[in-house]
Amino acid sequence: MNIAFTTPLPAEGFSRLRGYQLYADPEIAEVLVSTFDKRVDREMISQMPRLRLIANFGAGYNNIDLEACRERGIRVTNTPMSVVEPTAELAFALMLSVARNVCLRDRQLREGQCEPMAVMNNLSHGLYGKTLGIIGMGRIGQALARRALASGMKIVYHNRHRLPEEIERRYEAHYLPQDVLLQQADFVSLNLPYTPESHHLIGAPQLTLMRSTAYLVNTARGAHVDEEALIRALKAGQIAGAAMDVYEHEPQIADELLRMPNVVVSPHTGTGTWEGRLAMCEEVTDNILAFADNEPIKMNIVL
Amino acid sequence: MNIAFTTPLPAEGFSRLRGYQLYADPEIAEVLVSTFDKRVDREMISQMPRLRLIANFGAGYNNIDLEACRERGIRVTNTPMSVVEPTAELAFALMLSVARNVCLRDRQLREGQCEPMAVMNNLSHGLYGKTLGIIGMGRIGQALARRALASGMKIVYHNRHRLPEEIERRYEAHYLPQDVLLQQADFVSLNLPYTPESHHLIGAPQLTLMRSTAYLVNTARGAHVDEEALIRALKAGQIAGAAMDVYEHEPQIADELLRMPNVVVSPHTGTGTWEGRLAMCEEVTDNILAFADNEPIKMNIVL
Repeated sequence: MNIAFTTPLPAEGFSRLRGYQLYADPEIAEVLVSTFDKRVDREMISQMPRLRLIANFGAGYNNIDLEACRERGIRVTNTPMSVVEPTAELAFALMLSVARNVCLRDRQLREGQCEPMAVMNNLSHGLYGKTLGIIGMGRIGQALARRALASGMKIVYHNRHRLPEEIERRYEAHYLPQDVLLQQADFVSLNLPYTPESHHLIGAPQLTLMRSTAYLVNTARGAHVDEEALIRALKAGQIAGAAMDVYEHEPQIADELLRMPNVVVSPHTGTGTWEGRLAMCEEVTDNILAFADNEPIKMNIVL
Repeated sequence: MNIAFTTPLPAEGFSRLRGYQLYADPEIAEVLVSTFDKRVDREMISQMPRLRLIANFGAGYNNIDLEACRERGIRVTNTPMSVVEPTAELAFALMLSVARNVCLRDRQLREGQCEPMAVMNNLSHGLYGKTLGIIGMGRIGQALARRALASGMKIVYHNRHRLPEEIERRYEAHYLPQDVLLQQADFVSLNLPYTPESHHLIGAPQLTLMRSTAYLVNTARGAHVDEEALIRALKAGQIAGAAMDVYEHEPQIADELLRMPNVVVSPHTGTGTWEGRLAMCEEVTDNILAFADNEPIKMNIVL
């Protein structure tokens, strides 16, 4: 089998594909390993006449033209398992950083601009005892809830479908309509996949509902948030701060966000640990081997 | 009762002391509320002839000359409960920030110096699956262990006394001699009180034992660590990085630390949340009221 890649990936993650031709030319490739940062559009697909599987490296697959795949009968898989823990971990790290002013103080100390160390200086806000509102309570949302619960937070969530009672109990999580969640939460974290329906899920009306002491955390997809409206809300003090790993006009980050002290920015690295990258390679390998063995039941099928 | 303060503290935290004279002159004060950032030395004590209680705002009390108190029969209390969650939270925040490069990337993005957003750029290391070694497994160490366990970490610890089996089981924590802990841990967190015996607990020999991929986190007291030896170890790549809220020569932070990309610095704000500050005021109030009611059993007695 011939496997093409849109992006070079670590060889040690694909040791189980020994015997296959990796980095094959597009003309002969039956499999394409794609990454979230490279569009796989109709044109690219048309240049791969033998393509039968796109094994996406990533959970989100809005980089892929699914319609074009559907027409050609090309299967699409993703890596929903290996991304869970690194992404939930970064969401939690960003939440802590923005609330506890970790990055701000580190920067101020390096620049010699920090208030002197004293008991009533450099104060921040804690997570303990606060309410976390999770929008999108899939695997990543739940992995975030697990961390937050152990950190003394109360969990409320919104999801397309309410979760089984057993899972709600595990995280002591209460289901809320989205608007109520936005009104109650001290922290709002977006953890849902991007779909046309989730476009600008958080816009001016939603930001108005949020508490002036609340923080927004986005590690999902940039276009969930109307970034202009977010900037206006931050400037007006409508919310207390924001931490984001993804941006509406990625890789562009609005200059205004980069100048705000109550914002933490991260360069789309939710899954970006070395350990996570290798786990994603292994999950891509699983999908390709299952495809080769004609075992669709073992693949993470998107299409 | 007349209560003096070394430092102005939020009035709303002392609403239950209505009726007492707050911010009394030293000459007439029976109680002194002291804060960790101000030394209460023999001279200050000698200027307070009526002093019978020092109610320290903070868990650590190495700011107070206990010997001078003992000679005068002055009681000393602290606030060990209210500091637990904010401090464990910051320790965990710093650990996440240094491992996931949160502050580094935020700084690089703001300075326009970040690698482009791409799948193999800006990689970091995760906590999930790693081993956290906690030195000092008291309340704060355990609150840190709770967070780390929920984040997929394995817990090993060292403590003067081994903990009861029940507590070990709760955190799935394994007791290790300190040298073995230093060799095994991917993250080493210091969570013990400062005593003369803990001075330079982490020096050159200990840093040599640590893994080259390991991180040191100190939210306890600066003098636990030989800072010069730490700087040498970081420069030599003997350890992967460090995150610190406290410094050996506080409030001075070594310039070299401020220039290192694999270091996160914080201005001694372990307990420094607004919520934490108010909780500490309430705990100081509890101690003073118990003292006034002659109920030593309800005080957090240090001396």
